[in-house]
Order: sequence, then structure tokens, then C-alpha cells
Amino acid sequence: MKKISLDSNYRTEFIDISEQVSKSANELGIRDGWISVYIPHTTAGVTINEHADPDVVSDMKDVLDRLVPWEGGYRHAEGNTAAHVKASMMGSSVRVLVRGGKLQMGTWQGIFFCEFDGPRSRTIWVAEG
Amino acid sequence: MKKISLDSNYRTEFIDISEQVSKSANELGIRDGWISVYIPHTTAGVTINEHADPDVVSDMKDVLDRLVPWEGGYRHAEGNTAAHVKASMMGSSVRVLVRGGKLQMGTWQGIFFCEFDGPRSRTIWVAEG
Amino acid sequence: MKKISLDSNYRTEFIDISEQVSKSANELGIRDGWISVYIPHTTAGVTINEHADPDVVSDMKDVLDRLVPWEGGYRHAEGNTAAHVKASMMGSSVRVLVRGGKLQMGTWQGIFFCEFDGPRSRTIWVAEG
Repeated sequence: MKKISLDSNYRTEFIDISEQVSKSANELGIRDGWISVYIPHTTAGVTINEHADPDVVSDMKDVLDRLVPWEGGYRHAEGNTAAHVKASMMGSSVRVLVRGGKLQMGTWQGIFFCEFDGPRSRTIWVAEG
Repeated sequence: MKKISLDSNYRTEFIDISEQVSKSANELGIRDGWISVYIPHTTAGVTINEHADPDVVSDMKDVLDRLVPWEGGYRHAEGNTAAHVKASMMGSSVRVLVRGGKLQMGTWQGIFFCEFDGPRSRTIWVAEG
Repeated sequence: MKKISLDSNYRTEFIDISEQVSKSANELGIRDGWISVYIPHTTAGVTINEHADPDVVSDMKDVLDRLVPWEGGYRHAEGNTAAHVKASMMGSSVRVLVRGGKLQMGTWQGIFFCEFDGPRSRTIWVAEG
């Protein structure tokens, strides 16, 4: 298992980690199989979506913030309920095929770490399988 | 890895691909393990839900369209932000157990390709693991 | 494959199944790899989120109920469309790393069975991979 460390800069932020995941696949020696990205946090998620136009994930942030506003009369005393809900909506892991040591994704696809309660220092787990 | 090709007919459409996935499991020679369905597109997703009553996925389309309307003052110039968001809400892959060469799902479960920006010709990747 | 049985007590309920999944990992003899939790139902899902403060999943229930209300002029005659939609929003499976026979999750993470159409008797499938 490899760990990727990153620092988010905003409360809500989609960060393209495709390069780091690709590098991890090499370091893990995965030639043909699957690589998985797992988020060990409860106020961040991971998703695969378009990496070509940054407006896509910017719009996605806005839609999620509208659906699950930060202020919502929530019970959770820490005040970051919205981040928890959005983390579960995106999910805690994604998987990508590896063939010949290279990530296999669609032309427009990138892997995005989804920060919902930043800025923070975060760790991402990457493993074969 | 096997590829499944399909043509969607509407902007939003849930297409039951359980049969094609089951056939792919046989072609891949999977007896006991997992089979994964991966969508290499960013405006389509995949989910497992009820296949018995087509009203279920029809209702699901309506709910998602209400939550993420097509027109929303989005930045993404291509105009299909809603499709990208719904793709991430459903997810880019699902996995199903295989035992004795047969998909193991609940009685009411089917695997649905979720078109959110059709009609289009689409490709789905299916692989062991 | 191991099966976990449980009874839900409310229409919507998030039930922490981390202990049962950990026990299943031992029974399956998984030392180093992945364990998967699969929900063979179409009105229930599974997610990983905070287990420390029960207000988190309580808030999550409320947010999902607001986004997808039980009464919504749906077509599906059985009347539980909202449960189907929320099941797909959470997802039908999650995976967790196992190292040295122990589940590897973040400090605050637990695995939650998401009941959306209870109370019912439910079965959860757990398998290596």
C-alpha cells in the first residue's frame, strides 16, 4: 500500500490526483489488474470525472453545496455535517484498471480527491486490487 | 477485459445491462470471484437497483433531474454539467460476485448503465476483479 | 462468502456493521487484501462515514430525506421509490483494506448499513476481494 499526502486549500475543492495514482501504480509494481484509491477520512471523498475543463468540477462543487448547504440546522456539534454527507454521496473509494503498467481510463476522465472540509492535510491510500 | 457497446436513445436513460455483464463473465472465464463494470465516460454512470418494475428507474431519473436540473446557470461551456454531476452521484463502477460462473445478485437487482447525456454510442468495460 | 443478518427497526436507519465485517474477515481467513461488503437489496445501501458521533448519520438521514422525500408523486406502485433512489446514492458495495487480519480504516470511519425501507430483516454479503 502507498500513501499519497496532499494539502487542500479551500473548504470545498476537487483535486486531480491522477498523476499521483499513476505513479503509485508503478511503485506498487502493478502491471495488469486493478488499482484502488481509498479515502480514510469522513469529510472527503473521491470520484472520477472530467479533468479537461476545470469548470466541470467547479460546477459540481456548486451543485453539491446547493443540495447540502453548510448551514442546515444540523445536530452534529462539530458543524461539518454537510461535508460528511457529500463524502458519502461521492464515495470512499474508486478503482481503475491497469494494463501494461498504465492506468486505463476514458479520454476525459481524471481521479479527483473531493475535499469538503478543508483546508486540511490529507492522506490517501492506494493499493492493488 | 471485455467491452460492451450500446446506443442510448434519450438524454437520460437507465439501461439494464445485466445480461451483457453475465455473458461477459462467461467469456472472461470467471468461475468464482468478482466481476467489475467500469464506465469510461464522464456523463454516464452505473448503478445496481430494481429491474422488475421499470417505474423504479423512471422515478429515479425524475428525482435526479429535479435535484440537478439541466439548466442551472453552470459555467461549463459544453452545457452538460448536470450529466457530469449525476454521473458522480451514481458512480463510475460497480462490482458483482460470481459463483459457479453465475452472477450473484439479490432477487430484484439488475445492473443499470445510467445515460445522462444521450443519445450517444457508449462503451462499457467489464473485467475480472 | 459470509452472510451477515440483521433486523432494522425504523424506515430509515444507519447501522454500524464494522464489528460484524471485521469478524467476517477473520472467519474468511483474510490476512492481507481487500474485504467487500455487498448489499443484495434495492432499498438499502452501504457507506463508510463517521462512527464516533451518532449525530452524523442522524443528520445524514435527515438530509437524504429532505432531498428525496417519501411522498413525491412517484410512479412506482409499491410506494418506496425514495428508498430505491437513496440506495443508489449511497451505493451497493464498499471495500476496506485488510492488513495482518485487521480492517484498515481511518480513525473516525465505520461501515454503515443504510436502511431506507425498514423495519425489515436484511442480509449482507461479505467476501474477500
